[in-house]
Amino acid sequence: MFDVIAFDADDTLWHNEPLYRSTQRQVLEILAHYHDRDWIERQMYETEVRNLEHYGYGIKGFTLSMIETAIELTEGRISGAEIGQIIELTREMFRAPVELLDGVEETITTLAASHDLMLITKGDLFEQQAKVARSGLANHFSKIEIVPVKVRETYQSIAAKHQINPRRFLMIGNSMRSDILPVIEMGGRAVHIPYETTWEHEVVPEEELAGRDFIRLTSIRELLAVIDELKNAVRYGER
Amino acid sequence: MFDVIAFDADDTLWHNEPLYRSTQRQVLEILAHYHDRDWIERQMYETEVRNLEHYGYGIKGFTLSMIETAIELTEGRISGAEIGQIIELTREMFRAPVELLDGVEETITTLAASHDLMLITKGDLFEQQAKVARSGLANHFSKIEIVPVKVRETYQSIAAKHQINPRRFLMIGNSMRSDILPVIEMGGRAVHIPYETTWEHEVVPEEELAGRDFIRLTSIRELLAVIDELKNAVRYGER
Repeated sequence: MFDVIAFDADDTLWHNEPLYRSTQRQVLEILAHYHDRDWIERQMYETEVRNLEHYGYGIKGFTLSMIETAIELTEGRISGAEIGQIIELTREMFRAPVELLDGVEETITTLAASHDLMLITKGDLFEQQAKVARSGLANHFSKIEIVPVKVRETYQSIAAKHQINPRRFLMIGNSMRSDILPVIEMGGRAVHIPYETTWEHEVVPEEELAGRDFIRLTSIRELLAVIDELKNAVRYGER
Repeated sequence: MFDVIAFDADDTLWHNEPLYRSTQRQVLEILAHYHDRDWIERQMYETEVRNLEHYGYGIKGFTLSMIETAIELTEGRISGAEIGQIIELTREMFRAPVELLDGVEETITTLAASHDLMLITKGDLFEQQAKVARSGLANHFSKIEIVPVKVRETYQSIAAKHQINPRRFLMIGNSMRSDILPVIEMGGRAVHIPYETTWEHEVVPEEELAGRDFIRLTSIRELLAVIDELKNAVRYGER
């Protein structure tokens, strides 16, 4: 039924968001004597989203946005030494181990034996490539696409490039906004596996999901059974 | 003779290095009251090269490295306001127009009518994609590859992916280190067109070039004639 089964990477195959959260918490600690913590956090989020247009996703843009926010909210009073601490904290993010989610290794290994698997991740080329390499999973994917954003056109151009019929394309990911909705819009199938936390910017209001045809699982451990079901459903003409 | 003719982008098709240089000059201006300018410049270069491993190429890494250097060399005394000025200066780089080098538009347009053209550029995915789009040249290239680094393995994997015989692959670029030597090592042909300035990190000592078979031009305007010559040379069995 599926020519290609594609996976998102961050927070679908390995933990990512907690690393950003914990780094941000430490930065908020540094800035706590200037301002109310919640207010700083709100400012940081707004700066980050505003800067996405130029910076894209990834650790470097995250770092620059936090520094920018810290300078703005202290009206330039923050010291160079404190900014140096922010840089030092984010530099540790590059060295963080890549920790697979529960069930990922077995599921990917099993699926790779019978299906053509693809990895589609948005973000910084350098950072994502390093994480893919450190994950130990790279060999299971016949194609790895690192893209700046994940919108419908992104998936359409990947499908065109690899001559994939969208109806025979299945995407699995944790972000409704980046992994599920654009794939459904292209005419593909999608499985949503929410992660324990979602970056606010990736959240889609529930009312936008009405009538959307996708499957939601609580763990990747349920995926093999669901793929079998989808195949049987087609065989018996249910879909 | 060539199945694919590939071009580097920054400082081969459009001006890039001068933007980095002029931004750095303005940052050195801000820091001039702390230290000797040449010394700061040297430190910045060293920080930048040390950080390439994590940051890769591009404006964000360049910015973070300048900020880091400024903090180090002032032992944290630099003010948040001054760092804010550095960020503001680099942010303008994202908005800078993409200016094609002399002769590029005509040469690429002419070549594209008779050859399969590819763009191979290293750097930040987000930034490079934005520049390609703004260059107005994107439609002339059947394939665009944005890669984190350009070493022999990079070219080999591009050749494998697109089923290109390296002997029928021609690369044109301004960097001996990134565009010429790795292509020759793979068994491809290469044309070097030096740019007016070269980032120190891309410079290859002349003695390393002894015995290397490549062509050096002073302008892309000479390229069409050289490609014709290469073809005729093959036709008459000279190579």
